Amino acid sequence: MPITGVSGLRGEMPGDRTLRLQHGNRIEALCVPGTHIAADIYGAAPAGTVSFSVKHTEGVNVEVVSQGQAEVGAAPGTGTRWPLKEGTVLRFSMNRASTEVNDNKVTVSFYAEGGQPISQAGVFLTGVGISLDVDTDRDGVVEKNNPNKASWTWGPEGHGAILLVSCNKESPFTLPSDGNDERVFSKEDLLDMARMVLRTEGPQRLPRGYEIVLYVPVTDADKVGVFHVQNPFFGQRYVQVLGQGKLCHTVQFTGGAAEMEFFVEGLRFPDDTFSGLVSIHVTLLETLAEGIPHTPVFTDTVVFRVAPWIMSPNTLAPVTVFVCSLKDNYLFMKEIKNLVNKAGCELKVCFGYSGRGGRWIQDEIEFGYIHAPHKSFPVVLDSPQDGGLEKFAIKELLGPDFGYVSREPLFEAITTLDSFGNLEVSPPVTVEGKEYPLGRILIGSSFPTSAGRRMTRLVRDFLFAQQVQAPVELYSDWLSLGHVNEFITFVPTSDTKGFRMLLASPVACYSLFREKQKEGQGEATMFKGYSGTDTKRVTINKVLSNDILAQQNQYVQRCIDWNRDILKKELGLTEEDIIDLPALFKLDKQGKAVPYFPNMVTMIVLANNLGIPKPFGPILGGECCLELRARSLLEPLGLCCRFLEDVVCYHDRLGEVRCGINVQRGPFPFNWWHLTP
Amino acid sequence: MPITGVSGLRGEMPGDRTLRLQHGNRIEALCVPGTHIAADIYGAAPAGTVSFSVKHTEGVNVEVVSQGQAEVGAAPGTGTRWPLKEGTVLRFSMNRASTEVNDNKVTVSFYAEGGQPISQAGVFLTGVGISLDVDTDRDGVVEKNNPNKASWTWGPEGHGAILLVSCNKESPFTLPSDGNDERVFSKEDLLDMARMVLRTEGPQRLPRGYEIVLYVPVTDADKVGVFHVQNPFFGQRYVQVLGQGKLCHTVQFTGGAAEMEFFVEGLRFPDDTFSGLVSIHVTLLETLAEGIPHTPVFTDTVVFRVAPWIMSPNTLAPVTVFVCSLKDNYLFMKEIKNLVNKAGCELKVCFGYSGRGGRWIQDEIEFGYIHAPHKSFPVVLDSPQDGGLEKFAIKELLGPDFGYVSREPLFEAITTLDSFGNLEVSPPVTVEGKEYPLGRILIGSSFPTSAGRRMTRLVRDFLFAQQVQAPVELYSDWLSLGHVNEFITFVPTSDTKGFRMLLASPVACYSLFREKQKEGQGEATMFKGYSGTDTKRVTINKVLSNDILAQQNQYVQRCIDWNRDILKKELGLTEEDIIDLPALFKLDKQGKAVPYFPNMVTMIVLANNLGIPKPFGPILGGECCLELRARSLLEPLGLCCRFLEDVVCYHDRLGEVRCGINVQRGPFPFNWWHLTP
Repeated sequence: MPITGVSGLRGEMPGDRTLRLQHGNRIEALCVPGTHIAADIYGAAPAGTVSFSVKHTEGVNVEVVSQGQAEVGAAPGTGTRWPLKEGTVLRFSMNRASTEVNDNKVTVSFYAEGGQPISQAGVFLTGVGISLDVDTDRDGVVEKNNPNKASWTWGPEGHGAILLVSCNKESPFTLPSDGNDERVFSKEDLLDMARMVLRTEGPQRLPRGYEIVLYVPVTDADKVGVFHVQNPFFGQRYVQVLGQGKLCHTVQFTGGAAEMEFFVEGLRFPDDTFSGLVSIHVTLLETLAEGIPHTPVFTDTVVFRVAPWIMSPNTLAPVTVFVCSLKDNYLFMKEIKNLVNKAGCELKVCFGYSGRGGRWIQDEIEFGYIHAPHKSFPVVLDSPQDGGLEKFAIKELLGPDFGYVSREPLFEAITTLDSFGNLEVSPPVTVEGKEYPLGRILIGSSFPTSAGRRMTRLVRDFLFAQQVQAPVELYSDWLSLGHVNEFITFVPTSDTKGFRMLLASPVACYSLFREKQKEGQGEATMFKGYSGTDTKRVTINKVLSNDILAQQNQYVQRCIDWNRDILKKELGLTEEDIIDLPALFKLDKQGKAVPYFPNMVTMIVLANNLGIPKPFGPILGGECCLELRARSLLEPLGLCCRFLEDVVCYHDRLGEVRCGINVQRGPFPFNWWHLTP
Repeated sequence: MPITGVSGLRGEMPGDRTLRLQHGNRIEALCVPGTHIAADIYGAAPAGTVSFSVKHTEGVNVEVVSQGQAEVGAAPGTGTRWPLKEGTVLRFSMNRASTEVNDNKVTVSFYAEGGQPISQAGVFLTGVGISLDVDTDRDGVVEKNNPNKASWTWGPEGHGAILLVSCNKESPFTLPSDGNDERVFSKEDLLDMARMVLRTEGPQRLPRGYEIVLYVPVTDADKVGVFHVQNPFFGQRYVQVLGQGKLCHTVQFTGGAAEMEFFVEGLRFPDDTFSGLVSIHVTLLETLAEGIPHTPVFTDTVVFRVAPWIMSPNTLAPVTVFVCSLKDNYLFMKEIKNLVNKAGCELKVCFGYSGRGGRWIQDEIEFGYIHAPHKSFPVVLDSPQDGGLEKFAIKELLGPDFGYVSREPLFEAITTLDSFGNLEVSPPVTVEGKEYPLGRILIGSSFPTSAGRRMTRLVRDFLFAQQVQAPVELYSDWLSLGHVNEFITFVPTSDTKGFRMLLASPVACYSLFREKQKEGQGEATMFKGYSGTDTKRVTINKVLSNDILAQQNQYVQRCIDWNRDILKKELGLTEEDIIDLPALFKLDKQGKAVPYFPNMVTMIVLANNLGIPKPFGPILGGECCLELRARSLLEPLGLCCRFLEDVVCYHDRLGEVRCGINVQRGPFPFNWWHLTP
């Protein structure tokens, strides 16, 4: 229901423009080639008229229309006399722009009974070409007067220009100073913006009383900014001419064929109250005399969609891996370095946040990007959940080539479900014929029956409003932290499916342990070498004989199965697409689940290299049977498993490998405007 | 872009429910007939299994599914042994509800190489029927388990239940008192509400650990209320069980086949942030043991759309005419009484508002109605513009059969464009094949280029959000008051078109005056007997020789023509559908237009009786030539014109007949849910 700003005035020019002729008078009018003017002949005729004839210059096309139908017979201009009827209209247009004012004309002669002429009515015409142009066909180049420029449609056959939000750090030519908050740019600074060209053609100057105005509707003024060169003689200084406070801008008409270049930036991402569509208009105005207000003669409209923020799934190539340097993660960092080297991407170590508790870089930010035919750059979404890294994204990431966006609720309370460990995205999927070529966003939420914890509405609304990765709400409130990445992840494979979904699975763990027990290995001990605080060494027999643990994990399995059933349906997955990775949970005093041993599914995925939390499972023949099982499930798919000890620095603080690491990935090879939401 | 509250959890039950079997165990499960349960056979089998067989009771349907395909061959239950393969799933469902707990079962036997049985896994099943039902097929009756009940579509072939906003005055059984704001109703009070029935079927009681919960999503809790009988033994006292503070309600399971009746009210009209759709769910929950949280087993969902507020155009039959009794309108009132008598409708005179300046009843309120298959009643929309009648709608109209709604902006400033003289609706139209069977709303706004006056966004958003009368924004800011009813109205006709659009027309007036001048009547005087303050008697010659007036009216004509061109396009009208009614305007010091003589187009329309502001035009042969012209244009269409003097009481205060009168009309014969917005 796109309500806001929909309007009959905007973007919809009437079909024909009404012009009032008057017998005994010759008026002057401007006409934009390609548009039609309709003049009521009956109303313009003097009393006693029974017929009329029409003469016109070569640059004008004229037809006589009666009852909505063009009159057949001889064309006007051949001296034909037409009987005067009520409702008869003269409809005319011009072929091309004029080189001089009033260089064309149309004259109507009125005749009385018997054929004697009794009066005339006429109009002098000046053709003025006006076309506001953008890259409607999305090839990166602004074409001329695209017939679809005033609307926007999705899909490979769709059309409509695209705008990027200026969420990267700008480098203005002149910095805002006190009392002058005008930003001035050089042309190079504007290349992220969408080009818009105003083409005009006509005589040396417009007749007196006319002007051309570029404007943005009030409802769009906070969503778009337009820049234009200030004064070409003083260098290429570009200033804002539309947007925010500026609703309209009078354009200098230069005569002949002219092109004026504008640059357009988005100021807001689509959200709850903004569909993403904005329009810019140019209008030719006329006035009758000093003191009489203007009326519009012609309006041309272009429509842009603000490019959505797009998340990148694990299946996209990693570019940069971010990890915080802490007092307690020296060894972990070493392992990560090895992994990153192997994956051939860059490692960025963040210093200086450990003092303020900055550790959970996965939870504080989510990497994504924005994309238009003319430009693409990464954009980080900053979580409203602040855990010591709240300044990281703005200080370390935001720059000329790196954008920033956040949604901070003013009134709503924040929970751990607002951490971006609770925000994932699937690889591209097809669900019952419907394609999601950019995957679907996964958000953890509370059970439908309960009022429980949910991600704050502001962020959820933002994610839904991007439209191109239709979110699925899962149930994660059964977990103490409540993050979807505690029970789900995706890994790339080289087969046709291209990925597998991994789910944490108590059933798979019990099945493995029972198998080992049956093989006589029931006394194998887990948590060997484990440096955590609250878990003693236990044997397989002890785990299997713990009825409370069994019941709690049966419950956890039901919670995961509920999500599993939703995911199969919403992502169009079959059993073959899912791998159940052994996991165990226990319930805390609040009845919420926490991992019993380091949770392998909360891994880091760098192409086919997996950094998996070392599970400290039962050691059999010198090897951990959980690691072995994970290997046997993942290695046949071409994946390489490395088990990283994260107990002290992450697991013991209720996180895992993945929570302490964040990965910026390359963009999809797919153009988002080719999909249909 | 309906973002809010869209969710993968809501209204979308997974296809199959996952159940975990375990060899050596027999578990218990509830199954809702019509749903499917999928159990992983491979995961449930003990080591060494090579084949399995399945036995089941008669009430269960079972199939063996491998790689997403049902296995062909003998059906399960015939003793067939199936080879055990990875990914093999047992899929089963129940035919009907159980009469006793665990009266059905499925048993899987596992066999080793050589064929000897090694273990079994089983599940005891209890069938429990649950269906939440509403009037999805819109015939006024709640049917049983309509397959479309969880979605809503428009059109004659559409489906989905409908809710009315409780905007009429309720008559609660028990009034809210201090500390107890619970409303209690008798059943008769609930007949405006939509009926909802929860049907359950099963054994005498549910097995231990199960419960049935009715709930509303957090995002819908402020939009819907659900009522249920409190205790049938203490009379029919109905209390609220869901909505506002109440998110869920545990339902008593009574055993056998049972029907529980609920009544549902809407609490909010659709607007900017609310599409009008709400959902209510019922969920069957299970728990494993004391202290372990619940998990949902089955969810059933119904969707309602809140009925939109619908405006009634002039072409609908008048029911009641409202006019304020003032000190200065005694004669006018007498004339109105005659007109109302002739039209055969009711007159309601409003006393007691004149002291507070209450005069412009057209501007203060707009009559409309809401409609569901089970009920329809009138609803008044109260303008945020308050001119002395601000209490009228609540005090005089709101009642058990008359609803009330208003939109008052908190921060935005109110202008005269917020008066409902600036809010009209066209008769039903068809525009290039697209039907608007309830017409289109017309709102006056500012010119696209200017930041000028507009109707407050809150009201505009409300009107757009109703969806069924897609608004068109016109340009009315050129007028001092800025009301669309100063230049446009619609009258009913008995021909196939069914109506004409009337437009104020300076061109038509000049044309008439010139005609009369030519006939030698240039010295005819206008404003004879006119009691207004600021206009002297003038002749036709004087009017025609006034160049400033001519120029101002040429400008006004351009403004009206701009609207005329938009209206022709947006309402699909031709010249033949439009009548140009003579009118003259002058510009005030701010350059805004005011009528030069009482403006005939601002008339009151009661079926074919028109109450037209007496224009005080030039008197020729004892008759006003403006009245004569209006008659000659309107009477051939079967309309009856009465000219009412409104100078002192309305015109002199910048209003006309219409502004001092308001008309409540009958509803459309068309069901709004049959259209497609």
